[in-house]
Amino acid sequence: MKVEQPLKVFIISDSVGETGEHVAKAAISQFRPMLQQVDLRKFAHIDTVEHVKNIVKIAKQQQALIIYTLVRQEMRAYMEQVAAEEQLAAIDVLGPIMHAVQRVTSESPKEEPGLVYQLDDGYFKKIEAIEFAVKYDDGKDPRGILKADIVLIGVSRTSKTPLSQYLAHKKLKVANIPLVPEVEPPEELYMMDPHKCFGLVISKEKLHSIRRERLLALGLRDDASYATDARIEAEIAHFQKVVEQIGCDVIDVTNKAVEETANDILQRRRMR
Amino acid sequence: MKVEQPLKVFIISDSVGETGEHVAKAAISQFRPMLQQVDLRKFAHIDTVEHVKNIVKIAKQQQALIIYTLVRQEMRAYMEQVAAEEQLAAIDVLGPIMHAVQRVTSESPKEEPGLVYQLDDGYFKKIEAIEFAVKYDDGKDPRGILKADIVLIGVSRTSKTPLSQYLAHKKLKVANIPLVPEVEPPEELYMMDPHKCFGLVISKEKLHSIRRERLLALGLRDDASYATDARIEAEIAHFQKVVEQIGCDVIDVTNKAVEETANDILQRRRMR
Repeated sequence: MKVEQPLKVFIISDSVGETGEHVAKAAISQFRPMLQQVDLRKFAHIDTVEHVKNIVKIAKQQQALIIYTLVRQEMRAYMEQVAAEEQLAAIDVLGPIMHAVQRVTSESPKEEPGLVYQLDDGYFKKIEAIEFAVKYDDGKDPRGILKADIVLIGVSRTSKTPLSQYLAHKKLKVANIPLVPEVEPPEELYMMDPHKCFGLVISKEKLHSIRRERLLALGLRDDASYATDARIEAEIAHFQKVVEQIGCDVIDVTNKAVEETANDILQRRRMR
Repeated sequence: MKVEQPLKVFIISDSVGETGEHVAKAAISQFRPMLQQVDLRKFAHIDTVEHVKNIVKIAKQQQALIIYTLVRQEMRAYMEQVAAEEQLAAIDVLGPIMHAVQRVTSESPKEEPGLVYQLDDGYFKKIEAIEFAVKYDDGKDPRGILKADIVLIGVSRTSKTPLSQYLAHKKLKVANIPLVPEVEPPEELYMMDPHKCFGLVISKEKLHSIRRERLLALGLRDDASYATDARIEAEIAHFQKVVEQIGCDVIDVTNKAVEETANDILQRRRMR
């Protein structure tokens, strides 16, 4: 494999820079999937022309690509102008969408940085959902089951915790319950609407390798019961039985990123 | 206030649609800050021209604005063409950045949907960080303090939990510790590198109103000790004392979204 030049990217924002970073990573992953040899630098709260001018100068010295999210038309125009003068590539992330919305709605943008982070009802719903998922993680308190929008069940190491957090960021209250043959599942699982419940399943081979790695990472021997075939089979059989009793959907998470599983769950909810 | 027409937006993606949704929300919040009267619909895993054609037809019927993230050049060109035929506004989120990266690096994009969700080292580091933040939330286990990249301390209701999760999404291991005058802070707080520690402070007035609301939400009377001025002052005085002993930075989170506080912490870390 040839050694690649490090790619320098400046994210410039009049707010936090989350949006620019997200888009930059999505685009760059098409070239350098591991984001190796990529040097992303974020400049937040850039809201004066002097600020912009100074950063463009540094970008010029380092031959960095510029990706910007600036909500004021005047600032975007200035950025475009100085980048052109310096012959630097500078991509406007918000401008094209803002122009289109303006055309479609005939409304004028407020042009206030950070409006997306407003402490409105949606924000507090999200914060509440994040706290809910922490509180009702790992079957800590089965009372969460009847309060939740979504309940995830599965054997150990099926990404229940991170998946709960991803869904929480979509403002959904998620409780997750681990299933182990030795412990009777909480009765609330059979009292809830089964449509709210999703069973997470993973191939035996994958589960085996994840658990072996985990044991090794914990400094334990990899032949502990937790990672044996017999144990894993018993756990999965128990899981299948509980899932059938509840009558809920089952999602295979083998080799799937939690973002993808989260999207799958959201789509199934929408279908109903 | 005039009643606004609902704004319809279609997010079309060959992967999950997270990027398009993020950018759409940032741009639209400039027009309708509460995202009221906005109807966002996400179409994930759209990877054939037939798929694109069908969705554009529906978009035409509903006069929806299209925002798309498609990694294949051929698909983007097709989308542009059919949208133009139907005289619909369609904004390409990834194309401009991908072209710029291609020009700067002379590399060709892989054009595989979902590469940003690859199960690589970065992904597993993020998952581990999310699990870490849940495990070491709310002082549950002070051993987390010495293993963490960042330790957050603060009185109750200073957004420690959601902030820990936001930082976890940036692959940082975060432990958070509540401070209450009655409980001796864990000794690990004084053993750690104080640069890793951040105290979260909030104005007394704000804390008072948050806690009153919380009591009411819990169905309790709002004059419980938890929400009295005397109690809040005692807690804040205790917090100040601990923070001075540790010698850590203090961040004011009053009226700040957790995304902004997270960014503040990341910037302070970078400065060092």
